[in-house]
Amino acid sequence: MAPPIILINCKVYAEGIGPRAHEIAEAAEMVAEESGAIIGVAPVFTEIHPISHHYEVPVYAQHIDAVAPGAHTGHVIAAAVRLAGARGTLINHSERRLTLADIEGALRAARGSHLETVICTNNEATTAAAAVLGPDYVAIEPPELIGSGISVAKADPEIIRRSVAAARKVNPEVKVLTGAGIQSGECLKTAIELGTAGVLLASSVVKAPDPAAVLRDLVSLL
Amino acid sequence: MAPPIILINCKVYAEGIGPRAHEIAEAAEMVAEESGAIIGVAPVFTEIHPISHHYEVPVYAQHIDAVAPGAHTGHVIAAAVRLAGARGTLINHSERRLTLADIEGALRAARGSHLETVICTNNEATTAAAAVLGPDYVAIEPPELIGSGISVAKADPEIIRRSVAAARKVNPEVKVLTGAGIQSGECLKTAIELGTAGVLLASSVVKAPDPAAVLRDLVSLL
Amino acid sequence: MAPPIILINCKVYAEGIGPRAHEIAEAAEMVAEESGAIIGVAPVFTEIHPISHHYEVPVYAQHIDAVAPGAHTGHVIAAAVRLAGARGTLINHSERRLTLADIEGALRAARGSHLETVICTNNEATTAAAAVLGPDYVAIEPPELIGSGISVAKADPEIIRRSVAAARKVNPEVKVLTGAGIQSGECLKTAIELGTAGVLLASSVVKAPDPAAVLRDLVSLL
Amino acid sequence: MAPPIILINCKVYAEGIGPRAHEIAEAAEMVAEESGAIIGVAPVFTEIHPISHHYEVPVYAQHIDAVAPGAHTGHVIAAAVRLAGARGTLINHSERRLTLADIEGALRAARGSHLETVICTNNEATTAAAAVLGPDYVAIEPPELIGSGISVAKADPEIIRRSVAAARKVNPEVKVLTGAGIQSGECLKTAIELGTAGVLLASSVVKAPDPAAVLRDLVSLL
Repeated sequence: MAPPIILINCKVYAEGIGPRAHEIAEAAEMVAEESGAIIGVAPVFTEIHPISHHYEVPVYAQHIDAVAPGAHTGHVIAAAVRLAGARGTLINHSERRLTLADIEGALRAARGSHLETVICTNNEATTAAAAVLGPDYVAIEPPELIGSGISVAKADPEIIRRSVAAARKVNPEVKVLTGAGIQSGECLKTAIELGTAGVLLASSVVKAPDPAAVLRDLVSLL
Repeated sequence: MAPPIILINCKVYAEGIGPRAHEIAEAAEMVAEESGAIIGVAPVFTEIHPISHHYEVPVYAQHIDAVAPGAHTGHVIAAAVRLAGARGTLINHSERRLTLADIEGALRAARGSHLETVICTNNEATTAAAAVLGPDYVAIEPPELIGSGISVAKADPEIIRRSVAAARKVNPEVKVLTGAGIQSGECLKTAIELGTAGVLLASSVVKAPDPAAVLRDLVSLL
Repeated sequence: MAPPIILINCKVYAEGIGPRAHEIAEAAEMVAEESGAIIGVAPVFTEIHPISHHYEVPVYAQHIDAVAPGAHTGHVIAAAVRLAGARGTLINHSERRLTLADIEGALRAARGSHLETVICTNNEATTAAAAVLGPDYVAIEPPELIGSGISVAKADPEIIRRSVAAARKVNPEVKVLTGAGIQSGECLKTAIELGTAGVLLASSVVKAPDPAAVLRDLVSLL
Repeated sequence: MAPPIILINCKVYAEGIGPRAHEIAEAAEMVAEESGAIIGVAPVFTEIHPISHHYEVPVYAQHIDAVAPGAHTGHVIAAAVRLAGARGTLINHSERRLTLADIEGALRAARGSHLETVICTNNEATTAAAAVLGPDYVAIEPPELIGSGISVAKADPEIIRRSVAAARKVNPEVKVLTGAGIQSGECLKTAIELGTAGVLLASSVVKAPDPAAVLRDLVSLL
């Protein structure tokens, strides 16, 4: 069985930039080695370069634009993200939604720069639509779980189960991540049992006084 | 066999508002009756009401937002469009792109107000993704044909054929429209032969000195 | 002294479309005649035409885009809004923000179609910036008052006073509207005393069981 | 007299990322030292950190968002840009337009993180509106000059002159940059004579085979 994936989205939390980003990356590196889990970090754009160069962790961009290199001031292109050391990128996070045409364009740009792709979606229907496009991962963030404090281990996980089925139906290859409501080892275990390859999470690690302790708890029931 | 569909998008062309919108709607009504084709009109928002009330033509909104009734100043809701007399709506036109989440939200809002839905897409991949969402129609507008003056009857129509196949594969029920490069009866005939249910067009009718003549030419080879 | 202005924004409230839009417009017409106040209505786009044609009230669009007539499907152009019977338009409402370049473009488009312009702003600095552009009105909607239930008559109105001063400093001609926190005759009186020409309001009239009664209360202390 | 400012926007040109970004920064450092001009570089986000740490040049972000630290995945916050080593930031570039409220919000965020601010504008009216907000610089990019190959030294510079006057009228402190049509020493000289503090430019340096040679030509007539 493939090792479970934990992808830490630092967002632009005050607790996720500067020295804290380094602390989180260091914790990810350490707990990944201890546990065998794959633990990636998605820092702010400006820290993709230093984090990639200082730690042995897979680094992801939080977003890329669907544009080719050119006159697009202030945009984020796949090629630059790759040059900075990223292994992959989130696309269409709930806080950075893209048009359907741009999701598809960003996906092609990412592939062209050899970046792994994680498309975020919000329900069963959009998960299936995203899966059709052929990304490496789809991460489902049910709006009712985002930042709710509700744990996926306790909430009715039916939406995750149905989204996995909907994704597989149109694309048997695609891997799915549980993208909200992840707080503990129980949650990660539930996520795996629901048929997802792992989790995309943010505040529970990023805002924790001790990120390594939270990560150890997450992998504790594997 | 179902009658072919011609959907005229008035955009916000100077030649498609005011008295000209009435002239176009009148031509649509007349040629539909003569030919048996279904000819719909998508006027500017402010003319959905008068056009719906003066002519026996199916009227479509050019766009709706994915919002429910509420505090959303300046937005377009399905319920209002329906109240004004529309039968359906375009969603995600290439000039009014929506996020994937909003395409799905607009689709649900439209269904809730009993509006037909036409999702516009730009290539094979996004056509399949849109088809998965379950609209009544997907209209393919290949960027290389939009406003190009290139006729789909003469261009390589492979992209249309592949998009129809991709849509059907994930949703056998969905109907497809050819959404660019339509200028003549030859084009409409080609569009039908490619497996699409009809066409979505704009300037060739809207900017024509005699819209009825263009429509008659369009249906001439059926 | 100029009569005070009451501008009713119907937003896309369920209580502001269809027969309710007619009821609100009728109330506006009636109370304007009784009181001498100027009472305008900003219905949804699809109802600008019927409301303009059935009632003797100044009708405003809730938004226009900064585009010229052309290939801009699903957009709202000044010319169409004017043709439908509108006297003016809101620009940059807090629920429909525009870029600075588009605010200026929409303003020019509105002037070109002889529409009155009301630019909405959120604080002292943006009020001054908007005033520099030379609209007919700037409507200040302090975020802390929007939909808060806090009445401008009771809240510290210092932000309104300072915004009026900031606007006048760069453009002595511009008229200012108080754009949030308006519920009663006391509020309208306060708004006038603060140096604004009137008010822009929404839910207190639109969601009222008896819009005419609310409007009569609003003008009661003039 | 203050030394003239040359601000190089690398956009996301293929010729402005990776080793090329280093080459451009090195050229900027060298020619600044030779000439006494202030030469800044605005690289892609992911290269703010390495460029700031390897070269003695003022580094600028190409864009920041108007959000505070928090749950805003894929956004760019002032605090992170500052941490990465930037001295300032562009705001509202023509390729990355912001709403008026967000321009003002980004400006406050930048000030809070001690970043210099350069608001980009497109004409006389928006230049005055931006100047009212109190940035350090306004950079005027007349659309008719952007990427046109037309040199400001040869074109009618009246729009620059009027924009400078309009900005000064509402904010005597603000410095203005000429933001388009800059190709040679003659252009920089013209820009200074028109009352601007310097220039914002992109392709003429970024796409040049020898960026240092172009920069030397730019400062040659000072």
